[in-house]
Amino acid sequence: MTSSKQVALKPGDTVGILGGGQLGRMLALAAARLGLKCHVYAPDPDSPAFDVVQRATCAEYADIEALELFASDVDVITYEFENIPTATAMALQARRPVLPDTSVLGTTQDRLTEKDFVNSLSIGTAGYADIGSVEDLRCAAAALGLPAVLKTRRFGYDGKGQIMIRDGDDLEAVWARLSTRSAILETFVPFEREVSVIAARSATGEVVCYDVTENEHQNHILKISHAPAAIPPALAAQAREVATRIATELKYVGVLGVEMFVVPGENGPSVLVNEIAPRVHNSGHWTLDGASVSQFEQHIRAIAGWPLAQPIRHGDVTMMNLIGDEVLDYGKYLAEPGVTLHLYGKETVRPGRKMGHVTVVKPEE
Amino acid sequence: MTSSKQVALKPGDTVGILGGGQLGRMLALAAARLGLKCHVYAPDPDSPAFDVVQRATCAEYADIEALELFASDVDVITYEFENIPTATAMALQARRPVLPDTSVLGTTQDRLTEKDFVNSLSIGTAGYADIGSVEDLRCAAAALGLPAVLKTRRFGYDGKGQIMIRDGDDLEAVWARLSTRSAILETFVPFEREVSVIAARSATGEVVCYDVTENEHQNHILKISHAPAAIPPALAAQAREVATRIATELKYVGVLGVEMFVVPGENGPSVLVNEIAPRVHNSGHWTLDGASVSQFEQHIRAIAGWPLAQPIRHGDVTMMNLIGDEVLDYGKYLAEPGVTLHLYGKETVRPGRKMGHVTVVKPEE
Repeated sequence: MTSSKQVALKPGDTVGILGGGQLGRMLALAAARLGLKCHVYAPDPDSPAFDVVQRATCAEYADIEALELFASDVDVITYEFENIPTATAMALQARRPVLPDTSVLGTTQDRLTEKDFVNSLSIGTAGYADIGSVEDLRCAAAALGLPAVLKTRRFGYDGKGQIMIRDGDDLEAVWARLSTRSAILETFVPFEREVSVIAARSATGEVVCYDVTENEHQNHILKISHAPAAIPPALAAQAREVATRIATELKYVGVLGVEMFVVPGENGPSVLVNEIAPRVHNSGHWTLDGASVSQFEQHIRAIAGWPLAQPIRHGDVTMMNLIGDEVLDYGKYLAEPGVTLHLYGKETVRPGRKMGHVTVVKPEE
Repeated sequence: MTSSKQVALKPGDTVGILGGGQLGRMLALAAARLGLKCHVYAPDPDSPAFDVVQRATCAEYADIEALELFASDVDVITYEFENIPTATAMALQARRPVLPDTSVLGTTQDRLTEKDFVNSLSIGTAGYADIGSVEDLRCAAAALGLPAVLKTRRFGYDGKGQIMIRDGDDLEAVWARLSTRSAILETFVPFEREVSVIAARSATGEVVCYDVTENEHQNHILKISHAPAAIPPALAAQAREVATRIATELKYVGVLGVEMFVVPGENGPSVLVNEIAPRVHNSGHWTLDGASVSQFEQHIRAIAGWPLAQPIRHGDVTMMNLIGDEVLDYGKYLAEPGVTLHLYGKETVRPGRKMGHVTVVKPEE
C-alpha cells in the first residue's frame, strides 16, 4: 500500500509523524482527539512532540534502520517540516504511504523550482532569476532592478539564508557572504500587506480553504496573524483560488500554507505568491481556538483518507506568537480575560525560538 | 509540599493523573496545550489515556510501591474518578499534593454523607433514609412513600447498584437483590428535566460556572447534553449558585459536576441536587468545542495553581455520547457538516461503553 488513494485509517490506527516540534505536537493532539495513535520520529531527545505520544523514536533522519522500524510500526506517515532529505523520504515511502506525497517536496524545497511551478500556473510571483555566480547576480540585478533579495535556493527559513541588496551594494561581497553556488534573486515586492491561505485537500480532491489570514513579521519571524484579513471579498476569493489551484495541481493530500503579498495595481490590488509551505503553518494556528475545526485536524483527516470538515470561524481572531523569553509572561496571558494560551513544552528558551502562542477571539462586528 | 495552597506549577512540570479512561485522556490533552507534561497511572494496560502521554504506570491502585514511584515523578496529582480507595489516596498525598483534596472523596463517595452534606447547606435533595436492613427499608418506604429508589451507598455509577421500588413490590426480594448492608432509599423525584452545572474553583477561592446544561439519559447513561438549558434565567442563576456554594463549602480545587433535578413548585420551578461528581463530568464535554475554554483546561488551571478562565460559549451546543457500537458510525459523523467528532481510542466496543462523543454548535438565536 504505497498509493495515497489506498489510505483509509480506522480509529486506533497509528499515524507516523516525522519531526518533533510544535507542529508535530499539535498534529498528534489533533489525531488523539480523533481516536488515532501517533508515533513521533525526531532526532532531538527534547522534542516537544514526544511528550504527547506513547511511541517515539529518537534517531537521525539518516538512520535507515530506525526509519524502517518506524515505518513498520505505523499505518501512514506525515511530516511537520519540508526539508526532509530525499533518502529519508525514499526509505519511508518504500514501506508505508507518505502524505503529502514526497514528490511535493521536490517542488517546494527549491525556491527556483517552486517559483517556476507557480508561474507555470499563470499565478504571479515576484520577478526572479537563477543565480549561480557573481556574474549571474550582476546581470540579474541589472535586468530585475534593485532593491532585490538574494536567497539560497534550499533550506532557508525565518529569514535565514537571505540578503537584501540595495543600489550601490558591493555584489561581490554579497555573493561571498551568502556562500552558496545555488541561489535565486527575487525583486523586492513593495507589498501593501502579507497574507496567507491555509488550504486542505483530501485524497478525493476536495479542497477546503480557511479565511485569508493577514500576517505581520518581526525580524523575519511571524509575529501576528489576524483572520479574516482586511481585504476586499473579491481579493480574498482570488487568494483562496490561488491556494486551491496550487493544492490541486500538486495533487496535494493534507494541509498546506500559501504565503502571498498583496500588491497595488491599476485594476485594484492583487496577490503574488511568495512561498508554499507543504505542511500545517504557523499562520493557521488561530484555527485551534478560532474555528470549529483546526488546521491540524484537517491535516489528519486528509492523510487518514477521511472527509474534510467545513470550518466555521468563531469571530475576529488574532494570534500572536510567543518568541524567546516572551514566554516568561505566560502568567499574564493565563490571567487575561478572553486570551487562550498555548505552550509548546520546549525546555530551553532561546532568542527567536517559537515557545507558544496566544489567541484572542472577538465576536464579529 | 502537601497543601493545595502551595501548588504553583511552571510550564514543563508534570501532572500525575490517576485513572486512564477518556476523562484522564482529555485532561492530559488539555495539560499538553498548556505546556505541562502528564504521567498517567491506571491498572488497565488498554487505558486510552496512556496513548497521549510519554510516562505511564500500569499498576493496581493497591500497589503502594508503584504509587510512591508515580508520586515521586510528578508535581501534583489529580484523578478522573471518585472511587479512589482510601489507602491509595493516603499513599499519594503523603508525597505530593493531591487535588481536589481527598477529603472531598469522604463526602462524595457515600450517597448518604453526600446528601447530609448538601442538606446541611440548606440545599434541597430528594427525601432519603439510611437503610441497613429490610426493616429499615420497610419503615423508610412507609415514611417517604413510593415510588422510591434503593441505592448502594458507595460505588454506584451509570445506574449500577440501584433498584426502583414501586407500590406492591416485595421489599424482602429487593433488599436481597441489592445485596449490601449499606444502602440509601431516595424518593423518586418527578422532575421536569435533569440539569447539571460544571463549576471550577481555584486555590484562591474563585469559582467559575459554565452555563447550566440540560441532560437526557438512556438506560441510566448520559446520552445528550444541551447548553444552555431551556430554563428561566432566575432558575439558571439558582443552579449556578448551588454549585458555587457546594464547591466553596468543600474548599474544592478543580472542576466538579453537580447534577440536579428541576422540579415544579407553587412559586415556580426549583432545583434539587441529585449527585456531586468531584471531577470533570460527561455533561461538560460540550465545552471542548462549544466554549472558549474547556472543563479540562479549567481543571488543569485550578490544580496548577493558575487563574481560571472566563468561558465564552460559541453558540447553542448539543453533545451526544457515542455508546457501544454507535461508534461504528464514526464515518457518518466525520462527513456531517457542523459536527465535531471525538473518539476515545478504546480498543474494545462493549454495550454501554462510552466510546466517543459528537458536538454540534449552532449560532445562538
